[in-house]
Amino acid sequence: MQSIKVKSPATLSNLCCGFDILGIALKEPFDIIELTQRDQKGINIQHLDDFSLPTDPAKNIAGVALQSMLDALNYTHGFDVIIEKKIKPGSGIGSSAASAAGIVVAANQLLGNPFNKKQLLSFAMEGEVLASGSRHADNLAPCVYGGLVLIRDTASLDIIEINTPPLFITVIHPQIEIKTSFARKILPTEIPLRSAVTQWANVAGLVTGFLQLDYALISRSLHDVIIEPVRSKLIPGFDDVKKKSIDVGALGGGISGSGPSLFMFSENEKIANQIELEMKTVYNQLGIDYKTYVTTISNKGVEEII
Amino acid sequence: MQSIKVKSPATLSNLCCGFDILGIALKEPFDIIELTQRDQKGINIQHLDDFSLPTDPAKNIAGVALQSMLDALNYTHGFDVIIEKKIKPGSGIGSSAASAAGIVVAANQLLGNPFNKKQLLSFAMEGEVLASGSRHADNLAPCVYGGLVLIRDTASLDIIEINTPPLFITVIHPQIEIKTSFARKILPTEIPLRSAVTQWANVAGLVTGFLQLDYALISRSLHDVIIEPVRSKLIPGFDDVKKKSIDVGALGGGISGSGPSLFMFSENEKIANQIELEMKTVYNQLGIDYKTYVTTISNKGVEEII
Repeated sequence: MQSIKVKSPATLSNLCCGFDILGIALKEPFDIIELTQRDQKGINIQHLDDFSLPTDPAKNIAGVALQSMLDALNYTHGFDVIIEKKIKPGSGIGSSAASAAGIVVAANQLLGNPFNKKQLLSFAMEGEVLASGSRHADNLAPCVYGGLVLIRDTASLDIIEINTPPLFITVIHPQIEIKTSFARKILPTEIPLRSAVTQWANVAGLVTGFLQLDYALISRSLHDVIIEPVRSKLIPGFDDVKKKSIDVGALGGGISGSGPSLFMFSENEKIANQIELEMKTVYNQLGIDYKTYVTTISNKGVEEII
Repeated sequence: MQSIKVKSPATLSNLCCGFDILGIALKEPFDIIELTQRDQKGINIQHLDDFSLPTDPAKNIAGVALQSMLDALNYTHGFDVIIEKKIKPGSGIGSSAASAAGIVVAANQLLGNPFNKKQLLSFAMEGEVLASGSRHADNLAPCVYGGLVLIRDTASLDIIEINTPPLFITVIHPQIEIKTSFARKILPTEIPLRSAVTQWANVAGLVTGFLQLDYALISRSLHDVIIEPVRSKLIPGFDDVKKKSIDVGALGGGISGSGPSLFMFSENEKIANQIELEMKTVYNQLGIDYKTYVTTISNKGVEEII
């Protein structure tokens, strides 16, 4: 029987001013997903982690995504799936997306690449809908495409790959729980036109900064005047982490997804490490447990482990 | 006495989704401004056009802009200024910006370039404030810098030059009057967050399309879900012009400034000419006079005529 093992990366979404439209794949952390073809129909899922995720394939994000792909193929055999999640569910760095995207990319490769990336994304979306109840591609797309992506339009899955200069990324996941549904509920449904203009000026500046490899412009554009002022209140230590990170040289950063993970971009590893220290100090003082990562961009997204 | 003659171009602002932040300089139409240094203090303005603009330098846009520059220099002499405006005031293609930017760029060159572009822009802004009562740089900046520019932040005049692929631009100026103040008043002060996200996704797509020379992406991104639905109602024939232009191959387009001029981008001159015909047909049927231009981007902005 043929099998494949992949690592499926964490992703940052809602990059400051790029709320709902920009996502980026990280080198770390990542889940490990192993797929083995078998003769019998059906998907058999085993989890090696302690997150108590359902193993019934109809209730499991990876299961639903894989099934949607197999349905499109009229596939008559089945798969044994072993998932080792290292991205904690609810962390805000694309845990469910890593499951959904990882499994379809892996299965596609095992089956001789019958589908393109856009099709894979649409299968993975079925898993994400199970996870969040809504169609969002800003974690899935960077997982499938790698690097930094713009989701110009979710309905048509118009995904634009955007080059970036080398970036170091420091992530802290404070071990608090923020319900995505609550983080959505507190967002305003209406916003001032003036704030929207400020936001889209910064979005344009950010994208231009990435494409022109202009760190200073990236830094000047990494502002979110709409979402961050509301959601940052849910995350103790946010203002402190941001201020101290920028003081030691961060280009900027903010909340990933709907939190609680926070990220900061920097130009070099030394600054990224210094930011990690500052972040740890803030949460040590608050007495809140955390996990941190100092990493870079994964330009591949889901990747076979050989 | 030394003198200089420049052409100062029309500019498109509020490029679809890029409301308030993107502007572009056109090769045509342009004003002609001639400056001659003289010993006596003061600015003497003569207009060769029929627009009945004030010639008192304290009430003339070009006069105010030039004076603000001369004040910064403690300049002890004066200038004779001859202005031939070909860009009709109130057309929505940067008539006042052409006056304000043209004169300061010309004077700067005549005086041996004491100021950089950002400083020139800030002097020109004084003229624009006289014209519109508010600080907007989206017509001035392309005039001073040339090409397509992003005004990331108006307060700090953070101007980003953005490359584009070759673009043909068809402009029609229906001879109707739209008061800028009224066009502003009808804008919503609050907008749905969902619409704002759609808009900034398109802004990001548009800027990426320009920088990656990707006509298809530019076309897919040229949508304005916020301003155009409101302001297009002020312009008879708008929907028809847009639909027919796109039918003959336009990449997209919309209202320039606060109207009434409309613009359409295309990949080649043949399509641009076809669009002009379609535009003319619409306004002929409506019995509204118009002026049309088929032009390209001015990458220089204000330019000396030798």
